[in-house]
Amino acid sequence: MARPGAQPAGERKIAFLGPHGTFSEETALSCYQGADVRFIPYAGIDGVIRAVADGEADEGVVPVENSLDGSVSITLDTLAHEVDLYIVRETIRSVRHSLLAKDATDRIDVILSHPQALAQCRRYLRENHPAAALAPTDSTAAAARQVAEGAAGRAAIASAGAAGLYGLKVIATAIEDTPLNTTRFIVLARRPAAVGGQPCKTSLICQINGEKPGSLYEILGEFAARQVNLTRIESRPARTGLGFYIFFFDAEGSLAEENVRTAVEAVRAKSLWFKSLGSYPAGPR
Amino acid sequence: MARPGAQPAGERKIAFLGPHGTFSEETALSCYQGADVRFIPYAGIDGVIRAVADGEADEGVVPVENSLDGSVSITLDTLAHEVDLYIVRETIRSVRHSLLAKDATDRIDVILSHPQALAQCRRYLRENHPAAALAPTDSTAAAARQVAEGAAGRAAIASAGAAGLYGLKVIATAIEDTPLNTTRFIVLARRPAAVGGQPCKTSLICQINGEKPGSLYEILGEFAARQVNLTRIESRPARTGLGFYIFFFDAEGSLAEENVRTAVEAVRAKSLWFKSLGSYPAGPR
Repeated sequence: MARPGAQPAGERKIAFLGPHGTFSEETALSCYQGADVRFIPYAGIDGVIRAVADGEADEGVVPVENSLDGSVSITLDTLAHEVDLYIVRETIRSVRHSLLAKDATDRIDVILSHPQALAQCRRYLRENHPAAALAPTDSTAAAARQVAEGAAGRAAIASAGAAGLYGLKVIATAIEDTPLNTTRFIVLARRPAAVGGQPCKTSLICQINGEKPGSLYEILGEFAARQVNLTRIESRPARTGLGFYIFFFDAEGSLAEENVRTAVEAVRAKSLWFKSLGSYPAGPR
Repeated sequence: MARPGAQPAGERKIAFLGPHGTFSEETALSCYQGADVRFIPYAGIDGVIRAVADGEADEGVVPVENSLDGSVSITLDTLAHEVDLYIVRETIRSVRHSLLAKDATDRIDVILSHPQALAQCRRYLRENHPAAALAPTDSTAAAARQVAEGAAGRAAIASAGAAGLYGLKVIATAIEDTPLNTTRFIVLARRPAAVGGQPCKTSLICQINGEKPGSLYEILGEFAARQVNLTRIESRPARTGLGFYIFFFDAEGSLAEENVRTAVEAVRAKSLWFKSLGSYPAGPR
């Protein structure tokens, strides 16, 4: 039993992208339902990831890819270049955007949101607010907060939940370009998950020898030869000059399985640089 | 000979990302030195691309990838999903950022720039202006213009050229985190380039059967079997749901070469969906 004033021993600290009202917070809340955890908002995705790496938080929830907009670069780049963390869980959520303003009758001159949210609603914006200026913000919830605190004539793209949180009116709902708008979130920790039994994924990052033709083909051959299916391949700059890339692979199966483990070892042996992000239970597709 | 009042027959219209003073404009100016062209600024990268597709402009200059930040998603997505255009040229430019303000003695409370430029100067900002707020803008030139039009205490990260254009002082130069900061631009047109003789690249986009394990491996095998080297592979969402991707390939060589042409035909035959972006002279690495 916790002493008065002391932090309960079992309470884990969970970092998420704040402020309150982000899709990341909604995801974190649903991931840890009923668990003895405390949620801590951070100002940027890299802030969430560093909080886990530095031990300020035990786990962190970050978006990694969206079905319309693709990879979240800051997540991939921070995992590759700045920290050594593991993916312990993934979860996939539908993203529904709303247009929020102080007053439904206001003219809308400026629309604020996270750049990915602006991108996901491009068609709606072009057809309904072609003259509005688009202003990027750090998160959808930050946009809602700025609209609530600012002058009239501004609107935010955010979740309908953020409207209640910041005292805004919902002007339009489901404004994303397609109902297929889903985001995959990952939970990060300093140690790999204990997996076994359930369907898993394994994630890794490597730099191949880009000067040698067919290097990527050889790497993929290590997976194909062992019937390991790749669910995702993503390239990012190696940051050593244009034309040099690192690759992120998500494979079906866990490192507890012989074929996955030997494929990953073969990839490691052929890579200039390699990092394992561990194995974790696969989220529903 | 042009009649008075008529547009000269030879004058081509070149779309670029405005306002004046962007790196895109500098790139466009250097691409068409001495040519009979007129440059037209557009507000967004997708605007540049659509202007070419709609016939408002004959060619358009857009960034496609940066050595630190990776792909320019809006360029790839617009090319894949919204228009049918060809790459007729590529050019690679070093990106040098400067800090610009109205007066060299002003205190700097807010620093404005495009989010990618702010990211590229992260170390300089942390060491020299740790207390300054960072404000994202649509382009580096837009940041310079806003600083020129706004109150004191604000600075912009933009090209040194933008200082002259907007009447600002250059406070610091070469403030980017690494000299390896280069951007690859492509020139788009409605018809493929006539190539032959010089070293070329060929670009294509395809959707493979993601349900079938090893599909990407088989596609890469078509290139490898014909000794066609891939300089870049990039995945983007197919926009049909999470887990479905399209792939952008840049290959060395042109469709006038037998091995490239047969590799591309084999890839086309194996793809669920396929689009050729044509062959074009390779820029210097």
